Amino acid sequence: MIVIMEPGATPEQIAAVQKRVEEFGFSTKLAPGAERMVIGIVGVPLPDTLKEALERLPGVEQVVRISKRYKLVSRDFHPVNSVIRVGDVAIGGDDVVVIAGPCSVESEEQIITTARAVKAAGAKLLRGGAFKPRTSPYDFRGFGEKGLKLLAKAREETGLPVVTEVLSPNEVDLVAEYADVLQIGARNCQNYLLLEAVGRTHKPVLFKRGMAVQLEEWLLAAEYIAAQGNDQIILCERGIRTFETYTRNTLDLAAVPAIKRLSHLPIIVDPSHGTGRWQLVPAMMLAAVAAGADGLIVEVHPNPDQALSDGSQSLTFENFATVMPQLARVAEAIGRRLPLPETTSEYAMMAPAE
Amino acid sequence: MIVIMEPGATPEQIAAVQKRVEEFGFSTKLAPGAERMVIGIVGVPLPDTLKEALERLPGVEQVVRISKRYKLVSRDFHPVNSVIRVGDVAIGGDDVVVIAGPCSVESEEQIITTARAVKAAGAKLLRGGAFKPRTSPYDFRGFGEKGLKLLAKAREETGLPVVTEVLSPNEVDLVAEYADVLQIGARNCQNYLLLEAVGRTHKPVLFKRGMAVQLEEWLLAAEYIAAQGNDQIILCERGIRTFETYTRNTLDLAAVPAIKRLSHLPIIVDPSHGTGRWQLVPAMMLAAVAAGADGLIVEVHPNPDQALSDGSQSLTFENFATVMPQLARVAEAIGRRLPLPETTSEYAMMAPAE
Amino acid sequence: MIVIMEPGATPEQIAAVQKRVEEFGFSTKLAPGAERMVIGIVGVPLPDTLKEALERLPGVEQVVRISKRYKLVSRDFHPVNSVIRVGDVAIGGDDVVVIAGPCSVESEEQIITTARAVKAAGAKLLRGGAFKPRTSPYDFRGFGEKGLKLLAKAREETGLPVVTEVLSPNEVDLVAEYADVLQIGARNCQNYLLLEAVGRTHKPVLFKRGMAVQLEEWLLAAEYIAAQGNDQIILCERGIRTFETYTRNTLDLAAVPAIKRLSHLPIIVDPSHGTGRWQLVPAMMLAAVAAGADGLIVEVHPNPDQALSDGSQSLTFENFATVMPQLARVAEAIGRRLPLPETTSEYAMMAPAE
Amino acid sequence: MIVIMEPGATPEQIAAVQKRVEEFGFSTKLAPGAERMVIGIVGVPLPDTLKEALERLPGVEQVVRISKRYKLVSRDFHPVNSVIRVGDVAIGGDDVVVIAGPCSVESEEQIITTARAVKAAGAKLLRGGAFKPRTSPYDFRGFGEKGLKLLAKAREETGLPVVTEVLSPNEVDLVAEYADVLQIGARNCQNYLLLEAVGRTHKPVLFKRGMAVQLEEWLLAAEYIAAQGNDQIILCERGIRTFETYTRNTLDLAAVPAIKRLSHLPIIVDPSHGTGRWQLVPAMMLAAVAAGADGLIVEVHPNPDQALSDGSQSLTFENFATVMPQLARVAEAIGRRLPLPETTSEYAMMAPAE
Repeated sequence: MIVIMEPGATPEQIAAVQKRVEEFGFSTKLAPGAERMVIGIVGVPLPDTLKEALERLPGVEQVVRISKRYKLVSRDFHPVNSVIRVGDVAIGGDDVVVIAGPCSVESEEQIITTARAVKAAGAKLLRGGAFKPRTSPYDFRGFGEKGLKLLAKAREETGLPVVTEVLSPNEVDLVAEYADVLQIGARNCQNYLLLEAVGRTHKPVLFKRGMAVQLEEWLLAAEYIAAQGNDQIILCERGIRTFETYTRNTLDLAAVPAIKRLSHLPIIVDPSHGTGRWQLVPAMMLAAVAAGADGLIVEVHPNPDQALSDGSQSLTFENFATVMPQLARVAEAIGRRLPLPETTSEYAMMAPAE
Repeated sequence: MIVIMEPGATPEQIAAVQKRVEEFGFSTKLAPGAERMVIGIVGVPLPDTLKEALERLPGVEQVVRISKRYKLVSRDFHPVNSVIRVGDVAIGGDDVVVIAGPCSVESEEQIITTARAVKAAGAKLLRGGAFKPRTSPYDFRGFGEKGLKLLAKAREETGLPVVTEVLSPNEVDLVAEYADVLQIGARNCQNYLLLEAVGRTHKPVLFKRGMAVQLEEWLLAAEYIAAQGNDQIILCERGIRTFETYTRNTLDLAAVPAIKRLSHLPIIVDPSHGTGRWQLVPAMMLAAVAAGADGLIVEVHPNPDQALSDGSQSLTFENFATVMPQLARVAEAIGRRLPLPETTSEYAMMAPAE
Repeated sequence: MIVIMEPGATPEQIAAVQKRVEEFGFSTKLAPGAERMVIGIVGVPLPDTLKEALERLPGVEQVVRISKRYKLVSRDFHPVNSVIRVGDVAIGGDDVVVIAGPCSVESEEQIITTARAVKAAGAKLLRGGAFKPRTSPYDFRGFGEKGLKLLAKAREETGLPVVTEVLSPNEVDLVAEYADVLQIGARNCQNYLLLEAVGRTHKPVLFKRGMAVQLEEWLLAAEYIAAQGNDQIILCERGIRTFETYTRNTLDLAAVPAIKRLSHLPIIVDPSHGTGRWQLVPAMMLAAVAAGADGLIVEVHPNPDQALSDGSQSLTFENFATVMPQLARVAEAIGRRLPLPETTSEYAMMAPAE
Repeated sequence: MIVIMEPGATPEQIAAVQKRVEEFGFSTKLAPGAERMVIGIVGVPLPDTLKEALERLPGVEQVVRISKRYKLVSRDFHPVNSVIRVGDVAIGGDDVVVIAGPCSVESEEQIITTARAVKAAGAKLLRGGAFKPRTSPYDFRGFGEKGLKLLAKAREETGLPVVTEVLSPNEVDLVAEYADVLQIGARNCQNYLLLEAVGRTHKPVLFKRGMAVQLEEWLLAAEYIAAQGNDQIILCERGIRTFETYTRNTLDLAAVPAIKRLSHLPIIVDPSHGTGRWQLVPAMMLAAVAAGADGLIVEVHPNPDQALSDGSQSLTFENFATVMPQLARVAEAIGRRLPLPETTSEYAMMAPAE
């Protein structure tokens, strides 16, 4: 941490900073500049409290943090990529992994049909919401445990492991009983008690970035999970909130190579929430893989115009099956693989969509 | 709800929209324009699902929602200002109410000294955190129940009702046992299970706006609390996230008159989190009251440079006591009142700070 | 400037940084930390080029600038408030100055009637657009020189100095011939050639903040004007662009006390563009003055529903006259003055609006 | 345009809206809803002034625009992709076109060496700044006409057409004398007089999106160029301003497929400004092409750590030559082409970087 004094700071003010640092048990080094004194603080880890305390002292202009505040999820301390295994699937290795399925589980037929269709097109995991956070209390909020059971049934039928969201510490055990991967949604990115609750399970966690959360804050939030002993964390970029209104969110694809530099954790991309418009989803799937994402999570629905939620951003089976072979070619172009089933589906054999 | 068709939409596409609306149980009216057909949908309340379903249909360009989605908290259905009572204090009436205290409860002496100082300067409620959400898992997270007990002791000593944050549905009963007002923090603004949990209590709720939450979404979130039967909601603007980095957040004071138009609920302002810099807090306290806020929540600490959290944005006793008489004059200037104790404190008699 | 090395930086990498700094003619100091080496750079002013060059070097994690990049407009080098004089009016002194008038000059009658009405209510300058930047090329773009002549006529009739926008270096001389204050709009905040052109005049400049411009960048842009010899700069906060859509922009009132700390220049506020809704304007006028603004610029129109631009954010004469006495009371409450004409207008005697 | 009345709007208020619309020369249709009256306005084009006028009328809750405000650049009126030709190069056709070169022209050797290197690696146009907009008045601002001459010399040597920025209407003729493509930078995206000045030339225009400009506003700004008779417009996404600070801007790649839907103009991407960090540039080059961009503009410098501007975001010759063959493979994967020179450079034969 570095303390930058104001130009006219007095020797007494400088001494007061040094004294305060020593009270916290750390030592200082003075580095006089042309216009101002700079005070370096030696020690690790330096708490936020110290930063805030020093910012208050007279004569202090600014306090700059130097060391990173996250450790367990940092690439500095774990240079090799982490690979998260879910059944036979490895996320964070050479293969690009696609997770697909409806926003909400709506019926046995819907979820099983979808599971079969996305599996036939090359998806490796099934997504589906049983507990749904909704902006309005008057909207459909999911089937709860019944939805979990239908997901389990779809897994039984197809062999696809399932990913589903958990909303509250109280529901972690219930959801973990059925799900292969626990999803933390964007609204809960800084719900620290929930993060700790999933951190205490042994399940992989698909951890979405919050709508107003910077990369460093996201990694600090992931640190909450890791600090409880669960390092099976898959980060998921799903768009941030900006002034642009044409898209539902602004998908921050530069987060993919950025996270790869900062952390050893795998990162996947959600182009459905990232754009909110199904017409933009295929292009952003291709872009995400080209950017180096370890996978995708995509909304697919048998009849999006009948969906109980997120219909406007869901792909049809045909849309999904059409883009998958292109996605495999892009993966190959950058030296990765996206293995497709040998018997390609009827859609995959069709000409690429416009 | 209004459906705007693309310029070249066919009669079949228009009929398909009408059919879909009827399947949901609503009726339509056609309104042909110069370039496009517009289809009005009659009925209330129209679910989001319908909007998403129609957005998917071929030939549809855009679907615009007309009716507001919140009802219980809307001024349309409740034109008179709500007044929330906490002990003898009324929030939302003529008087401007100031809530003050430390970010975190740190010791018996700290909280009691602070309670006495802020009461002497004119505060009517005491704030103090026992359960603290922190960006890093390695920072101080509050004293938990011990902190609640110290708050109760400070109330006993001074008569000030206490406001404190609750982080999880599991802790609502515990916190409600000690607190007079339950605070929902910005990070939990869309933690709907927590909102419903406080909605099931009979305690007033101080409900902060989330960092990336629009006014309409905030009111929809408040609707979650109200829908459980608790309409004792005090909204609190605390700054939103923008590209500006000089301040910790961007305090959106226009939210004050805007919420007054949209809702009957009282709204207060938190200039401490809203700016993150104590030097800017007094000016924003004055501005918030001039904008029509029903109150303020302000961080005050006996020794901000010793604080365990948020030291850089906390006022000293002296800062606080100095600004309160100015605040009272501003309240009076716009036709409201901020009654100060008869025996003014030593600080209040000092000349106004620069 | 401080260079923070990566944890594993080698002695050769550190030496390379030192060598590069010396090539720029500056010297370095090493400050070893617990985890990383920190290198201080001594010298002033340090160019951005050096920062960018060092960010490229292997082993460098981050380069942090310490000294401010603006000098002429900085309070560090000019601790006393600047006061800008326009005729008899002083902006930046004890008096709060209100500038009012229509968005666009539309006719002789419109501008003269408005000038009289706003003067009667206490405005000290007249605003009015002759050259208008419009988002769409198909909208009304102002009367050009004819508009300037009408402004001059309104000044002749009422004695109010006039403020009007200039859009291009080519038009600076023409506009300066008629205007008392040259306005630079938000879209031109970083149009550096235009800033230099107004910097070469001797006219006061009303300089609006850009929609995506941080405080430091705004002051650096003001430095372009000052560097040409014109230090008659009045800063104007007019709202920034955020995700909130209820208001046209998000008015950043904390910029007022922040700029007061960073710069000696006066700062005023534009609540009309800052909110985009006339119903919110009076509350934000009051708030801006309470926050310490040196003045306001407000859109007032005889018949806002007939206005050729910005009708939805303009006050009527009655709205304006009603809020001015309240504004004067708020100014007084914080120890400033807003002198109103002795014969108050008919509106000013009415009861305060809701 | 649609006018949504408040729930309690009176027949007189509805009549007043109809009257106002008729005064503008348009007609209305009433569409009564369950809670409110909706009034459709028939006519094209409907001016913003009408929208603002109606927003002011009593009883009006909201006015929603239905028709698009841009025509010339809209795909609605020009369904086929536009292809812009610069010498032998076609932008907007099947081939992906890469523009590369230094941020600023710094010397004859620098620009000619760079031109040769980027050509050898597959670039089809040369970029280089002669007139530079800089945040601080104390930074290097380009060589002006001397820079233009050096660009022309580099074109002579290599045959690459040149792209360079123009800052002011006064300089358009001078820059057009030397440049093959006129660049409008992000800060000038809404400098309408400059847009009209380049609109009056017959040169292709590379038109960057502003930092706080929505897609619709960007297309409306492009309409300013087209309305002057120049439809040779290449749009360029270069990142928008958000709360994320790890990257210099947030590159909005979803703008690529979105613009393809809204407009017939080609769109390219600038990953250098879009990220501000050279380490992230190759990944975002690949992602942009996968998203469907018609080309890229990338900063390449012989010695980025010696660059006079933007060193931290420039690729070396080696970085650039390494990514180009990968880029060609990604282009092919999505059915496009990026032809590389037959004699591949020494770098291109190296193994792909990390």
